Amino acid sequence: MKKVACFGEVMLRLSTPGNKLFGQSANFNACYGGAEANVAVSLATFGIPASLVSRVPANDLGECVLQELRRHGVGTQGVYTGGDRLGVYFLESGAGFRSSKVIYDRAHSAFAELKPGMIDWEAQLAGHDWFHWSGITPAVSQGAADACLEGIKVAHSLGLTVSCDLNYRSKLWRYGVSPQAIMAELMAYTHVVLANPDDARHYFGIAASGYHIDDPAYNEAVLRQLVQAFPQIKTAVSTLRRTVNASHNSWGGLLLQDGEAYTSPTYELNPIIDRVGGGDSFMAGLIYGLLNFENDAQKALNYAVAASALKHSIEGDANLVKAADVLHMLEGASVAARVSR
Amino acid sequence: MKKVACFGEVMLRLSTPGNKLFGQSANFNACYGGAEANVAVSLATFGIPASLVSRVPANDLGECVLQELRRHGVGTQGVYTGGDRLGVYFLESGAGFRSSKVIYDRAHSAFAELKPGMIDWEAQLAGHDWFHWSGITPAVSQGAADACLEGIKVAHSLGLTVSCDLNYRSKLWRYGVSPQAIMAELMAYTHVVLANPDDARHYFGIAASGYHIDDPAYNEAVLRQLVQAFPQIKTAVSTLRRTVNASHNSWGGLLLQDGEAYTSPTYELNPIIDRVGGGDSFMAGLIYGLLNFENDAQKALNYAVAASALKHSIEGDANLVKAADVLHMLEGASVAARVSR
Amino acid sequence: MKKVACFGEVMLRLSTPGNKLFGQSANFNACYGGAEANVAVSLATFGIPASLVSRVPANDLGECVLQELRRHGVGTQGVYTGGDRLGVYFLESGAGFRSSKVIYDRAHSAFAELKPGMIDWEAQLAGHDWFHWSGITPAVSQGAADACLEGIKVAHSLGLTVSCDLNYRSKLWRYGVSPQAIMAELMAYTHVVLANPDDARHYFGIAASGYHIDDPAYNEAVLRQLVQAFPQIKTAVSTLRRTVNASHNSWGGLLLQDGEAYTSPTYELNPIIDRVGGGDSFMAGLIYGLLNFENDAQKALNYAVAASALKHSIEGDANLVKAADVLHMLEGASVAARVSR
Amino acid sequence: MKKVACFGEVMLRLSTPGNKLFGQSANFNACYGGAEANVAVSLATFGIPASLVSRVPANDLGECVLQELRRHGVGTQGVYTGGDRLGVYFLESGAGFRSSKVIYDRAHSAFAELKPGMIDWEAQLAGHDWFHWSGITPAVSQGAADACLEGIKVAHSLGLTVSCDLNYRSKLWRYGVSPQAIMAELMAYTHVVLANPDDARHYFGIAASGYHIDDPAYNEAVLRQLVQAFPQIKTAVSTLRRTVNASHNSWGGLLLQDGEAYTSPTYELNPIIDRVGGGDSFMAGLIYGLLNFENDAQKALNYAVAASALKHSIEGDANLVKAADVLHMLEGASVAARVSR
Amino acid sequence: MKKVACFGEVMLRLSTPGNKLFGQSANFNACYGGAEANVAVSLATFGIPASLVSRVPANDLGECVLQELRRHGVGTQGVYTGGDRLGVYFLESGAGFRSSKVIYDRAHSAFAELKPGMIDWEAQLAGHDWFHWSGITPAVSQGAADACLEGIKVAHSLGLTVSCDLNYRSKLWRYGVSPQAIMAELMAYTHVVLANPDDARHYFGIAASGYHIDDPAYNEAVLRQLVQAFPQIKTAVSTLRRTVNASHNSWGGLLLQDGEAYTSPTYELNPIIDRVGGGDSFMAGLIYGLLNFENDAQKALNYAVAASALKHSIEGDANLVKAADVLHMLEGASVAARVSR
Amino acid sequence: MKKVACFGEVMLRLSTPGNKLFGQSANFNACYGGAEANVAVSLATFGIPASLVSRVPANDLGECVLQELRRHGVGTQGVYTGGDRLGVYFLESGAGFRSSKVIYDRAHSAFAELKPGMIDWEAQLAGHDWFHWSGITPAVSQGAADACLEGIKVAHSLGLTVSCDLNYRSKLWRYGVSPQAIMAELMAYTHVVLANPDDARHYFGIAASGYHIDDPAYNEAVLRQLVQAFPQIKTAVSTLRRTVNASHNSWGGLLLQDGEAYTSPTYELNPIIDRVGGGDSFMAGLIYGLLNFENDAQKALNYAVAASALKHSIEGDANLVKAADVLHMLEGASVAARVSR
Repeated sequence: MKKVACFGEVMLRLSTPGNKLFGQSANFNACYGGAEANVAVSLATFGIPASLVSRVPANDLGECVLQELRRHGVGTQGVYTGGDRLGVYFLESGAGFRSSKVIYDRAHSAFAELKPGMIDWEAQLAGHDWFHWSGITPAVSQGAADACLEGIKVAHSLGLTVSCDLNYRSKLWRYGVSPQAIMAELMAYTHVVLANPDDARHYFGIAASGYHIDDPAYNEAVLRQLVQAFPQIKTAVSTLRRTVNASHNSWGGLLLQDGEAYTSPTYELNPIIDRVGGGDSFMAGLIYGLLNFENDAQKALNYAVAASALKHSIEGDANLVKAADVLHMLEGASVAARVSR
Repeated sequence: MKKVACFGEVMLRLSTPGNKLFGQSANFNACYGGAEANVAVSLATFGIPASLVSRVPANDLGECVLQELRRHGVGTQGVYTGGDRLGVYFLESGAGFRSSKVIYDRAHSAFAELKPGMIDWEAQLAGHDWFHWSGITPAVSQGAADACLEGIKVAHSLGLTVSCDLNYRSKLWRYGVSPQAIMAELMAYTHVVLANPDDARHYFGIAASGYHIDDPAYNEAVLRQLVQAFPQIKTAVSTLRRTVNASHNSWGGLLLQDGEAYTSPTYELNPIIDRVGGGDSFMAGLIYGLLNFENDAQKALNYAVAASALKHSIEGDANLVKAADVLHMLEGASVAARVSR
Repeated sequence: MKKVACFGEVMLRLSTPGNKLFGQSANFNACYGGAEANVAVSLATFGIPASLVSRVPANDLGECVLQELRRHGVGTQGVYTGGDRLGVYFLESGAGFRSSKVIYDRAHSAFAELKPGMIDWEAQLAGHDWFHWSGITPAVSQGAADACLEGIKVAHSLGLTVSCDLNYRSKLWRYGVSPQAIMAELMAYTHVVLANPDDARHYFGIAASGYHIDDPAYNEAVLRQLVQAFPQIKTAVSTLRRTVNASHNSWGGLLLQDGEAYTSPTYELNPIIDRVGGGDSFMAGLIYGLLNFENDAQKALNYAVAASALKHSIEGDANLVKAADVLHMLEGASVAARVSR
Repeated sequence: MKKVACFGEVMLRLSTPGNKLFGQSANFNACYGGAEANVAVSLATFGIPASLVSRVPANDLGECVLQELRRHGVGTQGVYTGGDRLGVYFLESGAGFRSSKVIYDRAHSAFAELKPGMIDWEAQLAGHDWFHWSGITPAVSQGAADACLEGIKVAHSLGLTVSCDLNYRSKLWRYGVSPQAIMAELMAYTHVVLANPDDARHYFGIAASGYHIDDPAYNEAVLRQLVQAFPQIKTAVSTLRRTVNASHNSWGGLLLQDGEAYTSPTYELNPIIDRVGGGDSFMAGLIYGLLNFENDAQKALNYAVAASALKHSIEGDANLVKAADVLHMLEGASVAARVSR
Repeated sequence: MKKVACFGEVMLRLSTPGNKLFGQSANFNACYGGAEANVAVSLATFGIPASLVSRVPANDLGECVLQELRRHGVGTQGVYTGGDRLGVYFLESGAGFRSSKVIYDRAHSAFAELKPGMIDWEAQLAGHDWFHWSGITPAVSQGAADACLEGIKVAHSLGLTVSCDLNYRSKLWRYGVSPQAIMAELMAYTHVVLANPDDARHYFGIAASGYHIDDPAYNEAVLRQLVQAFPQIKTAVSTLRRTVNASHNSWGGLLLQDGEAYTSPTYELNPIIDRVGGGDSFMAGLIYGLLNFENDAQKALNYAVAASALKHSIEGDANLVKAADVLHMLEGASVAARVSR
Repeated sequence: MKKVACFGEVMLRLSTPGNKLFGQSANFNACYGGAEANVAVSLATFGIPASLVSRVPANDLGECVLQELRRHGVGTQGVYTGGDRLGVYFLESGAGFRSSKVIYDRAHSAFAELKPGMIDWEAQLAGHDWFHWSGITPAVSQGAADACLEGIKVAHSLGLTVSCDLNYRSKLWRYGVSPQAIMAELMAYTHVVLANPDDARHYFGIAASGYHIDDPAYNEAVLRQLVQAFPQIKTAVSTLRRTVNASHNSWGGLLLQDGEAYTSPTYELNPIIDRVGGGDSFMAGLIYGLLNFENDAQKALNYAVAASALKHSIEGDANLVKAADVLHMLEGASVAARVSR
């Protein structure tokens, strides 16, 4: 079976319980996640062999990361130990018209202090067929960006398919560089890309006329420009999210392949249990779809959208639904939502 | 006042907390319930004297069942002790497009190991006016099916009204018999029946043209065939549930009496707090309605539908709303939903 | 900056956890609140200096009240200690068609046993610009009504703006007086009033033709009559709440100033996390709006409505959103509801 | 079998979770108890038919009391409904050198507002053999004291054995009477009494030389004086508690019958899970012992001490251990404490 | 490094939270464990490669077992899927003089329904050096006993060291055989045995004069008889537990090797957080000790006792302390118990 | 009344719930504390006006710190906002022989990035009589050490009494300086010092013969050397802690003033609810004692020891007992530990 390697940071996520605000919380729910690790966990849960390349501190929290990855069957040989701290992010879950809030506390983490040469990329990517990275990694620190480039180049030389979720984060990119230059270099080796209009605009100045993040036509125009700019891209996708409120979104996706655009059905996500990791679960679903439904781009897209629609009903960063659940949903969402007994 | 006896198994229900998956749950919420006991608890809460005939093991868990029944005022003289274990079922509550999951672990329970002659039916049914059973009981084991037939026959000889919720469960009926033959015999003594299209099809091969479980016309056609097949049936009802997703259903009911069909108002159940026991609460509401609004089939149906609509807002298997709350809701649902202070 | 003094009781609120009924609850969530204290906390959170005049018992629960007020920056110099008990109210949170229930247990509280002369109003109101009271206070006891009148008169003599939320509660007014006479006297000194049709009808016999509590025209007619009856009123407002069910309401507001009526946008509140304190948060928003957008009645109203729409997403009695969050929502609710990261 | 009626108030107990202080608690654990109800629950759990005479308000909290009593098999026919509120007490559990704190909020309760004539004592005591009251009841209000005297007189006329736990509470007796006079009248009809030195001193001015509450000799001297003062007393007992700290007490008992004194073994209670209701569980154990080991005062005492030692390991007011567990402990405490599997 | 294979059942453990009784628990804490799996998890946590041979059902609960084992690094290749249910046991944690209670519900489990030939022992034991089983396995069912004998014989033929914890359970052995005959056959291939006096008496009728389970001399006498009966035993050990109460035990161990007896220091375990799995943690410590301190039986014993003393401070079945923590404790328990910061 | 200013960092403390290990915790209890803030909170709770000088980030977590301080009545005018993050520390609470573990994650915090000149010391110390700092502050960063020296010098110039808790932490002092030189300079202005043998040895190379941290004679010898080295010290104290295990310590104190040594009673702390902040509570008790019992060094010491003994029964960093509770304990610990009702 095809094997996928993901590269990125795993953080301790501390979220307020129930609908509490930061100022109301006498405790925090804890889980461990990060954009790329979420992809690896979802793939492993779908039954795709997946491993993570990362770095965690040599303390009990770093060990919790390893335990959590192992629990879900993600390979941890590529998770190095060292550095001073595990990155943390605090999450206050929104509801109704109150939006979710994120406080990042990830500077100076074991991962952010990666340096070129620390990772033995040849060893970590040996035996893999796919390499996945996201725009969060180069946004963290120069060292992480450098390591990412190292990895992408080795993946390239080994003939792996490379995928990327652009994942622009306005609160990162704080180490004094131009995202554009860095991202352009990394993109040059990438074959599959998840790019929303915000990402494309911030990274590459790509914009279409009008601006409606959930408009298929607008998204298609953006993806076409992106593929023009980076012609080695085989498949470009975007998610179509319309925010009714923090508890209710519409959700769909768009895929561009070989010049042809495909649009998915739209799902009304209501209620949303946990919106974090929605894009990651889409990315994992897409990789699964491209690997399993090779000649059926529509089905690959639909699988990605259904998988990520299900993710919104699950607490935590990672999508824990199985391939069978996603396939069952593709047969009809309202049937799938009945009790089985 | 009229007294109702119910016969069926009580299980320990272990449900995942909040919106957690089985694999995310470090603890389970515990309650005690079962289709027929839920009817008894709801009736007792409405103020109808109700008692349960059942069997639990002679250990602390069996005692918890007795305590819970007593707490709600259900008579427990007919709950025998003996056998090896209390049946268990595990519940993962769905949300959005993720459906609820049930894992039954009820084989070899104290109830499943009932044998003919164990229950002194004359003693347990003395002084009662109504006997309620459901299709789950004969589905559990041959012994339970035999005991059920014993009970129905004694109820018949004592002149009790007999009601049944067909309650087909695909995960039961594992002991190597034909549901059809057994159910047909039990149905021959039954006067009031709750039958959904799935039940009627699986048990009696009854189907109408087209298949839409929430279509009143379709349901009416099914009920008419059922009454034709079992002409001693006085009142046949079905629930009309449309699944938007696991958190949002439409809900109504249909009643057939003396050849005339009645349809209830439809309620949008959103959010659903706990969907389990929805049908049981409908059944209890129907019995209450038939006993209290004797010449008003429409009101009996409306009461059953409103009672069960309220149940979907309550955690646990059993409907704990009072008759006054249901009657208040019959005056107007949106008024009923305001804060009283 | 303008300073606001509020006068009213603070109670211990004991609410059932999650969606549990009273009879299902082995514990209660505890918080401390009351209509007028909720206004003070919301104002302090908006950055308006606010203080509370009240009375709590000299025990650990009374001290919890003081701690909670201090925590939110509300001045507590006017909170006297004495009396026998802290008022309590029990709350069972509704969901779907099941309404919330309140059990008041506030008789004989430290506040209810206030007597004229106990409060040094000159000292407590010195340095303030605004005095806020509500119809709950005179409803509690004769002593509280007397103290309220004392306070209003001192506020009047010191030239403070006086505001009132009529807040009719059918479960109070149990001490054998006519609400009409008492309220009329208190109203005579009041410049800003929040009055819903129910309030106006119960207190002053004011009614328009037809009766639809969420009909703007009906509400406007009521407010016009009210201002006619109490011509010193400068600004009269009402909230427009339509109850779809206990988890979903529509929400808006109407404001009458200088003979002109203003209507706010309508928000669909779905899901509602906590409906208690919705009116108080509207009142605080209104005071903030009138103080900050002096010549823009429309914006003051919109701020009040947006603030209180956000409140419905927050657990507890008090609105804990900041002015920046409300202003952000005025720019567009669905944008505001996205994750910021 | 002999039947026991108990008379007293049931309150809602709200205790801080874990080891939290009042000021640290965002929620309270809730249970329902009271000195005499605790005796009834313990007796019912031992298998002795027991019923309670009391009064609760006609609201959901009053119903919770009835449900809890029914759950444990206590007869509730004598629990009247009416009045305004359920009495409440707040409990902060101590640990180490930090003592537990109780805040009573029971004035004006449904029980405190009992009036003579409200209870049909002949009906409630019919068929019973034993009547139990405690010194808390007359301490609550004049009406409760009057009702208690009524009950005792009817019990006397019906030939019931009457028992009393003196239970002096310094925070009660607030309604302006002399405890001594009232208690002396009630004691004149009482045959079995639990009296600790503090009780005897506060109520009857009885004291021995020296003062060591856990000294058997001192306690014996007090009991002898008490029996001298009230010669109808058949059996007088006291508990011997030495407080090492709030988590560790020594525990034993002393019994005086027919002029002879019996001393129990001493148990080291460490850790104490819940100390509240320790005396009540002793009283229930004593009644059980006197009813079951008629000619063996030593065994009756030992049973009472072992039962109450076990109570200290159980959360909540009431002792929920079975007679078999107590008898097992009488065979050897350290053996009893092993896991059974 | 030496590799250890363990064979036994993994169950879902459902324990009451805090100090609650079964009848007080509205939820249960869930974890997954079993005597032999606990040994495997502890060994893996010490850094010894360990794998489990077992059988779980092909449902979400069976998957939870696999996830939990993987999380701790235990090899799961030998965990077969199939059968109907996961065994369950319910645990009520004792405190003070109230003992813990276990309700087994493990009959008919996937493991209990093992049959000869189901396990490919050659494959599962290949590459291992040690095979561990316990007396619980043959106590479960004939099929489990047969499979155990199969495994032991293959282990023998492959030259593995075989260890056993006799682990007598009076609530098992319900399938109608003589424990003695079965155990004698299994013991004949076993080199390292943990045997307490109760085990030795029930299985082999071995007893010394007097009977004091925590008396070293008595235990030594028993072990000497055991070794005489089964001369292939190289090392025999027993634990020395004295029960002060359920929260406080004394703890030590005795080891017999080459005719020489070794006694460990005694630890006062107070408070005990979780006593379940104490013996399993001793066994794992012993295996670690025998593998790592080959010529130092005293140190191996001391390690086993210190490891299992630490286990009593950890919730759940399995010992999660690392080798470094145990070694640190061997340097001095009171020093080890200080905060490190 | 005398006013006390404290200077130090406040962190978010994240502790594992119950007795769970890091690897077992799906959530963390959150509170806000730090050595010097703990002193301020305890003093404010005793009724001594106290304020804190510190720095927190301008985000929701920084605001939580301000809210928590205000709640307890600590002055927050000196708490500056700025910087990137709030320091965090993770705590795994020990039990029995398993010690507590601390993982510091405080580097790069808002406080650690203090620079000279950031704090307006004249403004912050105006109106105060006492300045308290601890050895943790200079251990954090060069900037914090510099700011501390600034503060001490201003305090000196304003004539404040200066106190210090040496508080050596082996996991800090990571920024490449010699603790000795820095601490010696800071100590030169300090009048009251809490110094344990470990502190004195690490900072100043002071040691007596033998080494027993809980030996009064050894501690006295160390304090005498310390006072010799820093002759401006008026009062030197040490705590005497003997660790039986993580749940049971002995606790006392020693005070040296004007050449005379005073020893406190010893308390057996068992169980310990929370050991963190024990020394801080001692320090706060000492400051209270020295301010209130000016000529009674013995009483000041006894108060400090009793206060901190009580602290060990309270969750969280800060001691929340009142002066009255401490004084009550000075009258007799076992009396104080009884229930008051």
